[in-house]
Amino acid sequence: MNNNLLDTIALLSRTPAALDALLRDLPETWTFRNEGESTWTPFDVVGHLIRGERTDWLSRAKRILQFGESKAFEPFDRFAQQRESQGKSLAQLLEEFERLRSENLTELGAMNLRAEDLARRARHPALGVVTLSQLLAAWAVHDLTHLHQISRVMAHQYRDAVGPWSAYLGVLHCTGHSEA
Amino acid sequence: MNNNLLDTIALLSRTPAALDALLRDLPETWTFRNEGESTWTPFDVVGHLIRGERTDWLSRAKRILQFGESKAFEPFDRFAQQRESQGKSLAQLLEEFERLRSENLTELGAMNLRAEDLARRARHPALGVVTLSQLLAAWAVHDLTHLHQISRVMAHQYRDAVGPWSAYLGVLHCTGHSEA
Repeated sequence: MNNNLLDTIALLSRTPAALDALLRDLPETWTFRNEGESTWTPFDVVGHLIRGERTDWLSRAKRILQFGESKAFEPFDRFAQQRESQGKSLAQLLEEFERLRSENLTELGAMNLRAEDLARRARHPALGVVTLSQLLAAWAVHDLTHLHQISRVMAHQYRDAVGPWSAYLGVLHCTGHSEA
Repeated sequence: MNNNLLDTIALLSRTPAALDALLRDLPETWTFRNEGESTWTPFDVVGHLIRGERTDWLSRAKRILQFGESKAFEPFDRFAQQRESQGKSLAQLLEEFERLRSENLTELGAMNLRAEDLARRARHPALGVVTLSQLLAAWAVHDLTHLHQISRVMAHQYRDAVGPWSAYLGVLHCTGHSEA
């Protein structure tokens, strides 16, 4: 495997344990509050990451190998977790994410991707032509985008509590940059 | 203890394990690269967090209880980790952070802070009057600021690798908001 793919897999394999260590059994002040109307709580984010494991990232990788540019991706459903997380605890979601990610990385490893596979092209419904290599890199940075978001959402809950220190705490000055 | 203090301690107690799960044995692509000249790597950030445990947050809390507004804080040395982390591995730093944080939280718990203690005032060299409650909240949000920074620094390493997906990955649009 090439270095880039090994780096990608190394990061993807750590995210579930990192989120578990950060969030499990944490008071709901941190995990069940958002940044205002139509924004996500850390609980919502973990549900979104589960959806990505279940239907998006690896499925798209397989689709690239099978169809190349001849069949565009299905768009992501960014609100699926509102239905799919209902009635579950955060601990259950963290375990589900860990299990699905682990299964997906096992399957990814078994695909034995070579350089020519990673260069395969596909059609993204909005972004145009992309490669398998870019898809796998985006899977890893998608984890980081949501870790970045979770740290921001949590910090927001203490915006008033820190008083004048807010001037020095960069995370409180982050406006989010996108819906994620 | 009041709820806010319990929430603060719950978060402070999880950060070392979360960083360990994310960073330990990760390829150096992720842990030893920064965002350009005069910026920090994740390795630098963990060194900075250690410095905070060793000389800043808890020391300031004790100083507030002892001296109140009569003696201003010493400024933080934001570059101490450049000397203090030299020759150490990331795994060593992660263990040192975990040990120091755990010792500090034990000491904080033993202080049995009451509402009137948390309202005690102090003088920050730049920010003016602050309270012990605000200091402890800022300690927690300081962790989140650096988790936010680490996710951004790591994502930066894949800025080119994700190709057109950069448009959708919010963390790649974060400019940092401050030196942290």
